[in-house]
Amino acid sequence: MTDHAPPPAGLASRVRKFEIYEVEFFGVEPTGSHVEVDLEVVFEGPGTRTRIPGFYAGNGRYLVRFSPATEGRWTYRTSSSFLEETVGEFRCLPARPDEHGPVRAEGLHFQHDDGTVFAPFGTTAYAWTHQPPELIAQTLRTLATAPFNKLRMCVFPKSMAYNSDEPAEQPFERDADGGWNVHRPHLPFWENFENRIRDLARLGIQADVILFHPHDRWGFATLSRESCLTYLDYCLRRLSAHANVWWSLANEYDMMFDRTPQDWDAFGEFISANDPYGHPLSVHNWLENFDFTKTWVTHCSIQSSAVHATAQWRTTYSKPVINDECRYEGDIEEPWGQLSPFELVHRFWATILQGGYCTHGETYYRDDEILWWAKGGELRGGSAPRIGFLRALVEELGGMLDPAPDRFAINPNDAVAAPPANQADNLHLRALARLDAVGWERFREGTAKYQAYQSDRAALLTYFGRSCQSTAHLDLSEDEWTLEILDVWNMTRTRLPGTSSGRTRLALPGREGIAVLARRARPAAQ
Amino acid sequence: MTDHAPPPAGLASRVRKFEIYEVEFFGVEPTGSHVEVDLEVVFEGPGTRTRIPGFYAGNGRYLVRFSPATEGRWTYRTSSSFLEETVGEFRCLPARPDEHGPVRAEGLHFQHDDGTVFAPFGTTAYAWTHQPPELIAQTLRTLATAPFNKLRMCVFPKSMAYNSDEPAEQPFERDADGGWNVHRPHLPFWENFENRIRDLARLGIQADVILFHPHDRWGFATLSRESCLTYLDYCLRRLSAHANVWWSLANEYDMMFDRTPQDWDAFGEFISANDPYGHPLSVHNWLENFDFTKTWVTHCSIQSSAVHATAQWRTTYSKPVINDECRYEGDIEEPWGQLSPFELVHRFWATILQGGYCTHGETYYRDDEILWWAKGGELRGGSAPRIGFLRALVEELGGMLDPAPDRFAINPNDAVAAPPANQADNLHLRALARLDAVGWERFREGTAKYQAYQSDRAALLTYFGRSCQSTAHLDLSEDEWTLEILDVWNMTRTRLPGTSSGRTRLALPGREGIAVLARRARPAAQ
Repeated sequence: MTDHAPPPAGLASRVRKFEIYEVEFFGVEPTGSHVEVDLEVVFEGPGTRTRIPGFYAGNGRYLVRFSPATEGRWTYRTSSSFLEETVGEFRCLPARPDEHGPVRAEGLHFQHDDGTVFAPFGTTAYAWTHQPPELIAQTLRTLATAPFNKLRMCVFPKSMAYNSDEPAEQPFERDADGGWNVHRPHLPFWENFENRIRDLARLGIQADVILFHPHDRWGFATLSRESCLTYLDYCLRRLSAHANVWWSLANEYDMMFDRTPQDWDAFGEFISANDPYGHPLSVHNWLENFDFTKTWVTHCSIQSSAVHATAQWRTTYSKPVINDECRYEGDIEEPWGQLSPFELVHRFWATILQGGYCTHGETYYRDDEILWWAKGGELRGGSAPRIGFLRALVEELGGMLDPAPDRFAINPNDAVAAPPANQADNLHLRALARLDAVGWERFREGTAKYQAYQSDRAALLTYFGRSCQSTAHLDLSEDEWTLEILDVWNMTRTRLPGTSSGRTRLALPGREGIAVLARRARPAAQ
Repeated sequence: MTDHAPPPAGLASRVRKFEIYEVEFFGVEPTGSHVEVDLEVVFEGPGTRTRIPGFYAGNGRYLVRFSPATEGRWTYRTSSSFLEETVGEFRCLPARPDEHGPVRAEGLHFQHDDGTVFAPFGTTAYAWTHQPPELIAQTLRTLATAPFNKLRMCVFPKSMAYNSDEPAEQPFERDADGGWNVHRPHLPFWENFENRIRDLARLGIQADVILFHPHDRWGFATLSRESCLTYLDYCLRRLSAHANVWWSLANEYDMMFDRTPQDWDAFGEFISANDPYGHPLSVHNWLENFDFTKTWVTHCSIQSSAVHATAQWRTTYSKPVINDECRYEGDIEEPWGQLSPFELVHRFWATILQGGYCTHGETYYRDDEILWWAKGGELRGGSAPRIGFLRALVEELGGMLDPAPDRFAINPNDAVAAPPANQADNLHLRALARLDAVGWERFREGTAKYQAYQSDRAALLTYFGRSCQSTAHLDLSEDEWTLEILDVWNMTRTRLPGTSSGRTRLALPGREGIAVLARRARPAAQ
């Protein structure tokens, strides 16, 4: 069966940590599936051993891609029914200074493999990889100066409003009946897609790869469960060694009416079991949050305008929360793409001040139908620079904000007779406890608090949202705190003179979009 | 017992319709209750007969106040255990041109007694009658040029933030124990209060008289049920003949923790049975709508930020809806008084475009604590003139807008297997039908439509709210329609050239606060 595979010639014998060590073999074209090729390589490095399956890359070429996370000497050995056993070795060098390895959920936040905090500030260009080269190049130029470090993007092409063009390439060859043959990946499609992931890596951007979505006219949304698993197998073999990959199992899973909860479980468990790197893995919804308590889900990927519920989601799921679609800044007729720039900036602040993360999208109409949210191109909205202002602030504060305790953390289902013991005589709380679910939700929205601590509690950030209050009280500790007034839209930071301590009354500008940053001036006494 | 009561001297023998014909008697001071005085007058006019109880007005004076709604000759006859029977007559002349009689709920809207439509555009100054004369005078000067035609105002004084001063007068004398003697109304208080109602009548403003409220430090919120009924009896005897009176049984009834549902029923039924004029009667809430299906409730008086639910409330209660507190324009620290001027204008438009009515309030902080919402004084906010712009428009359209049909009028409780028959194959609707109450509410909020017809369907008003869409489609009938683009903040109306018919695409400015008015240019063909 083998074609006298040569040794892996011309390959680097050294690789930097978190980059890809690619082993290439030559053989004959597979007679059966081009996905389920019987080729595995066992990589052994300092104290660690990993089995990586290969994939067929066309023209008799087989590739195995591995991204080591440990410096030092590595050896490898192939195992295949159709290729001769091959062994080799390479050295894994320290990572480039700006490469920190795959991102993983860590508590209610994210970190790279090397421990560097990652605070996602994502944007959305679902179909950018399916566009002509000039447009792809323009998107990359835009991303190079935009404030985003994660990009939501679909594998499959997109069919919906403003997305009627036919992609140049499709992910699979067709079978004799004209259906998709998921066992025959169409290689130009995949070469393009992975080059786009590499482009993003060069820009320091995580590729939030959306594996399924409902906005389809070609049949990718209705593949059989078995075909889906084959497709996922190929994605893992081909793409998982890229350090900047995230898996978004679906966009709007609850609009994929041919999929069952068992399908999603099967897919999620398959990825979880077969991704050697444990990339972030979640499922994005239309109306109903996915069940993020599933063990294979690493974080919450939510579509919701209810940004006031962010802290509750953290509590409910005990996983990091990204609101991946709080609606988009834009001017289209569809209700999901009409936010004012200020409103999207407001939703970012609200989400982050409740300990979550938020994702941008822009839907300004153009006659050529190149809307950023789908096809990429240029940004022209007002929110992006303000999101950059916020990102710089969050990174200055260490990137992991946790919400201050909620005044109204009552569980309405338990509370009929049981407000917290020390508040049992608080008639207001007893009235709250009588509310039904909708009444309770409205109350929570109306009284939501947007206030968060830096992880070491050396900073307290308070956002007043759309309130026009001209006065606020901050309950600071008895240490000395410096205070700054921030204007989230005008991107100003104004340091107040002196320091403050304990309960502090502040004068505010009396308009929407104001925040206050309190930083501890010197350590607590004790 | 009687003191040779003279005939009702010095009284007009003629009165205009809807004004007050007052009959005065003299006797000795009551030995028992000063409220439950045994004096009634039966008034007989053309085809009508009414019994009106009197009240004690001090110094041996007893008054009976009657407001006739029928022109022509009226006679009256007293009935009393302590006054001689007296008879008299007077003539009821046509009403002044600007006097239309008491307002009543009519279907889902309001009309005066003479059939004139009344579209409430209210404001709020809870404690204005309890302020010093100079401040009262300033409030009246402000109201004279403000766009409001209803004023929410409490009988009892107010004790809460920004309301710590002691009123000059209280409504009752004290009894020997220092408690309130509700049988001894303190007359200077009531003379002042009814003069304020008269002041409002002169300005064409309805007095939405709040009979109970929880923000109390004097004990008025905790009177016994029996005492409350005595107090209500006095209010009715003394105030009900004023054509511009409304009864708001409570402000924030669900924060009055000493009151039971049976109390509210007793009070509502008492007023309903004893108010000869059937003035509007409702109960305003803090968190939970009152049960507006009670037969004695004439309309819904709601506190809620959920303006998107207005059309649903109309449907649920089948009564006119006034959102009497959608929060206030202001800059105070309390979350209910921090709205931007634009947001309050937006809430007015949203409410009215769903067939409801909305009430203004202003809470800009001042060092002298004279905030409009409680004490009156001056208006300084940005919403009032824009509310005037909207009021003029609504009145131009006849004052009774009814919402266009809702795309998503599914009852989520019924819909699990039953979207409307012609939509049973609509997968989106089937997904919607799976939502829980909170999810459904969020969806409704996100897709709420703000579009209403003039009652004869000769005009269609569409409000795009906070959407920045630059395009809209209107589904007009096949008649010819003229179109105007309105800017709710800048108060501009821009007529588009020509006419439109059928499904019409419109270019919009692409910013928040835009509306379109379509008016039928000529009658339908048929």
